Amino acid sequence: QVALTSERYGLRRLPFAQLSSGDLAFFQRLMPGRVITDPEELELFNVDWLKSVRGCSKLMLKPQTTAEVSQVLRYCYERNLAVNPQGGNTGLVGGSVPVFDEIILSTALMNRIISFDKVSGILVCQAGCILEKLNEYLEQQGFIVPLDLGAKGSCHIGGNVATNAGGLRLLRYGSLRGTVLGLEVVLADGSAVDCLASLRKDNTGYDLKQLFIGSEGTLGVITAVSILCPQKPKAVNLAFLGCQSFAKVLETFTTCRAMLGEILSAYEFMDEKCMELVEKHLKLSNPVTGSPFYVLIETSGSNSTHDEEKLNNFLEKSMTSGLVTDGTVATDDKKIKACNLMLWSLRERITEALTHDGYVYKYDLSLPVAKLYELVTDMRARLGQSAKNVVGYGHLGDGNLHLNITAESYSHSLLDAIEPFVYEWTARHSGSISAEHGLGFKKKEFIRYSKPSEAIHLMQRFKAMLDPKGILNPYKMLPSSR
Amino acid sequence: QVALTSERYGLRRLPFAQLSSGDLAFFQRLMPGRVITDPEELELFNVDWLKSVRGCSKLMLKPQTTAEVSQVLRYCYERNLAVNPQGGNTGLVGGSVPVFDEIILSTALMNRIISFDKVSGILVCQAGCILEKLNEYLEQQGFIVPLDLGAKGSCHIGGNVATNAGGLRLLRYGSLRGTVLGLEVVLADGSAVDCLASLRKDNTGYDLKQLFIGSEGTLGVITAVSILCPQKPKAVNLAFLGCQSFAKVLETFTTCRAMLGEILSAYEFMDEKCMELVEKHLKLSNPVTGSPFYVLIETSGSNSTHDEEKLNNFLEKSMTSGLVTDGTVATDDKKIKACNLMLWSLRERITEALTHDGYVYKYDLSLPVAKLYELVTDMRARLGQSAKNVVGYGHLGDGNLHLNITAESYSHSLLDAIEPFVYEWTARHSGSISAEHGLGFKKKEFIRYSKPSEAIHLMQRFKAMLDPKGILNPYKMLPSSR
Repeated sequence: QVALTSERYGLRRLPFAQLSSGDLAFFQRLMPGRVITDPEELELFNVDWLKSVRGCSKLMLKPQTTAEVSQVLRYCYERNLAVNPQGGNTGLVGGSVPVFDEIILSTALMNRIISFDKVSGILVCQAGCILEKLNEYLEQQGFIVPLDLGAKGSCHIGGNVATNAGGLRLLRYGSLRGTVLGLEVVLADGSAVDCLASLRKDNTGYDLKQLFIGSEGTLGVITAVSILCPQKPKAVNLAFLGCQSFAKVLETFTTCRAMLGEILSAYEFMDEKCMELVEKHLKLSNPVTGSPFYVLIETSGSNSTHDEEKLNNFLEKSMTSGLVTDGTVATDDKKIKACNLMLWSLRERITEALTHDGYVYKYDLSLPVAKLYELVTDMRARLGQSAKNVVGYGHLGDGNLHLNITAESYSHSLLDAIEPFVYEWTARHSGSISAEHGLGFKKKEFIRYSKPSEAIHLMQRFKAMLDPKGILNPYKMLPSSR
Repeated sequence: QVALTSERYGLRRLPFAQLSSGDLAFFQRLMPGRVITDPEELELFNVDWLKSVRGCSKLMLKPQTTAEVSQVLRYCYERNLAVNPQGGNTGLVGGSVPVFDEIILSTALMNRIISFDKVSGILVCQAGCILEKLNEYLEQQGFIVPLDLGAKGSCHIGGNVATNAGGLRLLRYGSLRGTVLGLEVVLADGSAVDCLASLRKDNTGYDLKQLFIGSEGTLGVITAVSILCPQKPKAVNLAFLGCQSFAKVLETFTTCRAMLGEILSAYEFMDEKCMELVEKHLKLSNPVTGSPFYVLIETSGSNSTHDEEKLNNFLEKSMTSGLVTDGTVATDDKKIKACNLMLWSLRERITEALTHDGYVYKYDLSLPVAKLYELVTDMRARLGQSAKNVVGYGHLGDGNLHLNITAESYSHSLLDAIEPFVYEWTARHSGSISAEHGLGFKKKEFIRYSKPSEAIHLMQRFKAMLDPKGILNPYKMLPSSR
């Protein structure tokens, strides 16, 4: 059983109203059959995917329309009831589950595709659409979502936008701040703001949607998304390579960026510890062995002959110059689609493998690429035998390190050995203490390591303006004003 | 002599303080030699580049540092003096010059490059750096600015960001909302907010900088910019083609997007009227003639052999299938660099040619690509002989039409024939009444055609929160609350 967040962290509940039988009756009338109060059913939505935090909500609501979300929030705002907006509950910083008894407002039934325009590549859909399903739908039309991440099978596009998810395609297609063209959002008081434009360019007034992208459900509930989708690449190639040092991982990246240029769509790295865990806990087999570091390179392009030629030139150069000592390649032939999937699994399922290794202390940092792995080495030396495993992997092309530390179980003393050391180290190198995971519940007090106090103060003013009663995802993202 | 904006539009000055000799003495002490009061020198900064609006400021200040901007604004805020932040004064909607006697706060002397990192491609510089100079600096290091536009020789990067400039490279490198990584901004009350991160990914709190991107100087003054710059492409090719109908322009685009894929970096179109004006007023000669429409296609890539092959395949297909009837190609050989520049001039200098044709009514619209040129045809029919020329050109790849109407001189009745017709037409097709130029002074009342009232109301609340006295760029961007 996961410890209650409020107990583990010794928190006091803010003075929101308590759920009454009158409240329940109102919601039952509003959305009959979509009001969940069964404690067993709620358990799944009170605990995060990592099983690291647990709330004690007694109510989950499943609206189907923006109008329903609007009615729910208007009611909660008047009654001063706290609300925890929830998508696929795949967040890694405790932002997606309640801390106390906040009402869970789920987007699970808001999964309708509203429109897709094949000329412009613009998709408009409700917030609860599952990322992988959207991608399957788009692939049939010759397009893809400009976003891909390990949790794709369950995460919701609304949650992706609310957390400004990064993932595996950012290197190529840029961040959601560029690809999301419009949003529909319901504010804390229930008013809906329709900025669901389907235009690539629109400079009419402040870009309000940006404030909601990455606001982790604290400023409004995203109910629909308009997003620009790239054409499905005609040719995709993968290379899985072994490097003898991190310096060679970096040099391989520079070489690869120069030689693959515009067709490079992913450059992921992982250390040998990651591969050990994936092999041990998930029984995946690594086709390349015996290297301290591994690199996964993907190309996506419009001409398979050209792309293969570029990739081969790069591989030849990196092999002959000793940057890479071993490797395997999969090109986009139907026969080897399985091989392709298998290679991606090695990278994408590291998070899952880690959860099987014990309690996981997760860090998601932006750092100058040259310094990126030093933190892993320093941490390993610092923790010694007190940690089970210290591993590093991530989106090297974006300067994004995932540092993970596992132990048999949660321990305050191990946490104290890691934090604030990890944040101080990051701040010293002008990094970000959260590259893509957000702040949620677990990292909110550490925002100070990455943002100056005037910026935090300004954020608090935005929060106070848009949600004066603080009912939306309380205890999250912004530090408590102490 | 350009008519005073306040007189032409019959406006009343808001009750800001009047500039006193004490104020002047304060500024003289703060920045000796950088306080401009000479009416003749001020003339240039009171009138916009189009010579369509004119303010009557009696003072221009030229700070060199963020601290000076901060001191100026703190003083103005306390004294209730209105301020017009100004970059290169190349805006096209009257946003860059005063309407009455606002103090002009120029970024002209804030032109220092702060840092450039060759590994990450991240440039940090002051707001007053001229776009073209930045690009020249970067090209020496093997990089380019992800932004390019006709005004590059005089526009400032700070102004580009403040107006969320689009331009010629957006198709390839995306909008500034994705490439700008950090900003330093001074708020109306003089407080500086440092969000000048140099990280590709950073999810620690609300993305404050986004609110200032495209806020046209109404929420704060941008003093420094951090921007992600792409590598300079190794191979650049241009094709200038003639099409017999707009339908063929569209079909050529679809073909080109499929066959050129990731190397397509610009797809611009212009009608024959544009070419006539460029030839007549600027004496440029068009190497391709006799077509009602012209298309300029640019490819940028990492492998010249591959790129030329892709381009040749595309050209062959579009010629044999009759999409394109005539054309010329320039590949990136030093000998033909001049030819390359000349072809781009035909497109980039249309704006300039139009100013030589008389008074210009400018419209910058986002529309569904298929409908884009219909507006030009409709407008031409509607205006008949009352307009001198009605021309259409723009960034077709982004769904962005520049519709321009010229006449011997400004006339109220012609304006009434154009507006609100042009905005109603755009709204009917769910377009944007300002794709990239912004709202400035001239378009602010028309925001209602592209944004719902709740969104406008929210914008007004942001403005009131960040600039409660309304001293920053008054009379601009947001509609008067009537």
